[in-house]
Amino acid sequence: MTNKLTLLDVSLRDGSHSVRHAFTEAQVQAAAQGLNAAGVPYFEVSHGDGLGGSSLQYGLSAKNELKLIEAAASVCTTSKVAVLLIPGIGTKYDLQQAVSAGAKMVRVATHVTEADVAAQHIQLGRELGLKTVGFLMMAHMASVETIVAQAKRFESYGAEVVYVTDSAGAMLPQDVTERITALREALSCEIGFHAHNNLSMAMANTIAAVEAGATYIDGSMRALGAGAGNTQTEVMVAVLEKLGYHTGIDLYPLLDTATNVIAPLMQQPQEITASSLILGKAGVYSSFLLHAQKAAQQFGVDEREILMRIGKLKAVGGQEDVIYEVAQSLVKV
Amino acid sequence: MTNKLTLLDVSLRDGSHSVRHAFTEAQVQAAAQGLNAAGVPYFEVSHGDGLGGSSLQYGLSAKNELKLIEAAASVCTTSKVAVLLIPGIGTKYDLQQAVSAGAKMVRVATHVTEADVAAQHIQLGRELGLKTVGFLMMAHMASVETIVAQAKRFESYGAEVVYVTDSAGAMLPQDVTERITALREALSCEIGFHAHNNLSMAMANTIAAVEAGATYIDGSMRALGAGAGNTQTEVMVAVLEKLGYHTGIDLYPLLDTATNVIAPLMQQPQEITASSLILGKAGVYSSFLLHAQKAAQQFGVDEREILMRIGKLKAVGGQEDVIYEVAQSLVKV
Repeated sequence: MTNKLTLLDVSLRDGSHSVRHAFTEAQVQAAAQGLNAAGVPYFEVSHGDGLGGSSLQYGLSAKNELKLIEAAASVCTTSKVAVLLIPGIGTKYDLQQAVSAGAKMVRVATHVTEADVAAQHIQLGRELGLKTVGFLMMAHMASVETIVAQAKRFESYGAEVVYVTDSAGAMLPQDVTERITALREALSCEIGFHAHNNLSMAMANTIAAVEAGATYIDGSMRALGAGAGNTQTEVMVAVLEKLGYHTGIDLYPLLDTATNVIAPLMQQPQEITASSLILGKAGVYSSFLLHAQKAAQQFGVDEREILMRIGKLKAVGGQEDVIYEVAQSLVKV
Repeated sequence: MTNKLTLLDVSLRDGSHSVRHAFTEAQVQAAAQGLNAAGVPYFEVSHGDGLGGSSLQYGLSAKNELKLIEAAASVCTTSKVAVLLIPGIGTKYDLQQAVSAGAKMVRVATHVTEADVAAQHIQLGRELGLKTVGFLMMAHMASVETIVAQAKRFESYGAEVVYVTDSAGAMLPQDVTERITALREALSCEIGFHAHNNLSMAMANTIAAVEAGATYIDGSMRALGAGAGNTQTEVMVAVLEKLGYHTGIDLYPLLDTATNVIAPLMQQPQEITASSLILGKAGVYSSFLLHAQKAAQQFGVDEREILMRIGKLKAVGGQEDVIYEVAQSLVKV
């Protein structure tokens, strides 16, 4: 157990999903001022699906993400702006532009079994002088051995931190402990953890990660994020301090920002709905929900049964066709 | 570890706080039908502060609570209606009337150090043939030894279950484990646990309680309850089953009820606001919040500082004067 943790707030990136990518420069700047005043070391700014995510497929951003990064970076004296880059959605050119706009950290994200597509982006991050992070998404879908092997690739490309990312909010503390412990033993770089709250376990999973040796931890103000949202940053600061960890963060400016900046811009409450619970229970990424609902209507079956079967089939992004096949098979049953 | 758990839903009692005691008979009946269809063994119906709570001091109920209990009981074929009774607010006469209206369980609630005021109500519960429960509120404020001594009193009066109640949502899993383990060793009756989510730990604390031997567990649909709300019943069912416990509850009718009955009647989202976080961090009961806000305004000080000091002073209900004294002392500082 170490007592020094580095917190990263994802409200302005994962939260982008929750506001349908409609952040304005004024909102981003106000949130950035609060995070900077609270002394949060890093916070992420970009489309929910990372740099270049603004598209018909992933949802168009209301504002140019480079302007949002600039607006955030311009008010930072201590905090640093991070960006997410999913190879295939964002490009090396996008990353260079983000750096010109003020980004100081890149998190290169891949599906938990696909770290090899990230090699050149990790290398570029290091060349550009960024703090460079590998981000293994949907980490509940792979065995501990696979995660270790994939994380080692990230490390070999030059990643300074590797994250275990519970994208579907499907993990329980024991799952987290196993994964972080194995990475801690196998890697020399730092380990991070990113939670979602679909099973109401984001905070408990975060504590499990920290206790197992993770030193980079994500949170989101008011839990604003995809699905059921993330570990709630301001609550996490209070809980970690209560447990004796040092976050270096001033709680009151963070609370003020959550109350006065984030809460007013939320389009719907960040609660655990029946749909997000089923996504967590099935271990399915939230982008599948809309397709499952459409298929349920088309074939007259229960969307929950579709999602549970999809989870068992371990379908991944890009395999949306499977959803309709599953719905059809449920009719036959 | 036992695998047989008895779940109790408090949406229609603790949730009463969250809707300012405005439940209607139609709402209560629709929720009761869903809970009954899902096979939830018990659910509580009454004013947020229990039988007789409808008053100027605690908030007037929109509807007569006996009518609400009748409306719920009339549709139950498997589930049973429970009522909360806080001696001093509710009376033995109130309990007799509740039984006539269909209540099958009474939970007699006292501050964690005051079990002795409950003796006659526990005895009456047994005489009336009710499942009879003792409910130790604000259990984070007392030492393990005190809780054991108080719980033993409840047991000696005839309580069949004794609850550890984290009214302020101030506990962390280790606090829960310590308390439940000690009770498990000292008592012969069953042990229950009731959580609040102010520190985002309600679900993790619930799991800790079950692992330490609690067999009665409270939850609330959509987490509807005082402060930051309770452990979310439908999520709890999914998580406990995932962990291998048997709840005997059918998840889908519960999800339908949460979505179609509870969500539409909520007056505000059940999120962790800055105020509820501070209440959990300070370990202060939520009824103090309004006074702290008034005192903060009157003396021009920070309500959060007032609440943190009140927590250190371990003030309890009825000691609201202390809030103004603390606010005044902060001005001098």
